[in-house]
Amino acid sequence: MSDAVLHPAVTLRLYTDHKCFGPGVAMLLRRVRELHSLRSAAMDMDMAYSKAWTILREAERGLGFKLLHSTTGGRGGGGAVLTPQGEQLLEAYDLCERELKETAERLFARHLAPFAVTGEPEGPEEL
Amino acid sequence: MSDAVLHPAVTLRLYTDHKCFGPGVAMLLRRVRELHSLRSAAMDMDMAYSKAWTILREAERGLGFKLLHSTTGGRGGGGAVLTPQGEQLLEAYDLCERELKETAERLFARHLAPFAVTGEPEGPEEL
Repeated sequence: MSDAVLHPAVTLRLYTDHKCFGPGVAMLLRRVRELHSLRSAAMDMDMAYSKAWTILREAERGLGFKLLHSTTGGRGGGGAVLTPQGEQLLEAYDLCERELKETAERLFARHLAPFAVTGEPEGPEEL
Repeated sequence: MSDAVLHPAVTLRLYTDHKCFGPGVAMLLRRVRELHSLRSAAMDMDMAYSKAWTILREAERGLGFKLLHSTTGGRGGGGAVLTPQGEQLLEAYDLCERELKETAERLFARHLAPFAVTGEPEGPEEL
């Protein structure tokens, strides 16, 4: 039995026929917004640049619009910024995620919190 | 760009300091309820029995109570049934999951559906 108290976690993903937006790409976009570079964002998330690039392209392909565009010049050469649609989608996603988390907390408190018991289950048995 | 229309998917998981309940173990329990056997449930989900057993034990360890108990005798030897707590947790989880899905659909329609555009993004560029 763990020391940590039972709690809910909720994940929102957007799909077409494959996943195209979720917590990973949202975090990547937030870091790009901060760091103005996909390479720096990937590094900050301990993610290979090639993986970050693939995640982003898959998202853009599924959504049908660009999330980032490149900027040139400045310290360290070219960087990246969110497109207006990228900004708006991230904002809308963050809002939905926050509201879902609040709903999950309410539902958990009402229906699932009673299962946060203390004590050890009996040892494993063959099933 | 995919043909399928953009839509949301929401996942509810329960954690202590590690994941202990989510869609996978919930589906496993539903199958055990139907098939009265962990082995048959695993087979029905194309999952190795050893994996099903591990998922179940990890869940029970995190929750601090048993989800299944074994039954003996009957055709094919020993089987498994949900414990009363297992039944109640699954029912509560299913209810919360349904309400969260409804909330996600509402939030999606209000905030994210406008991003379900048609058209191709421009080709990839170096970022």
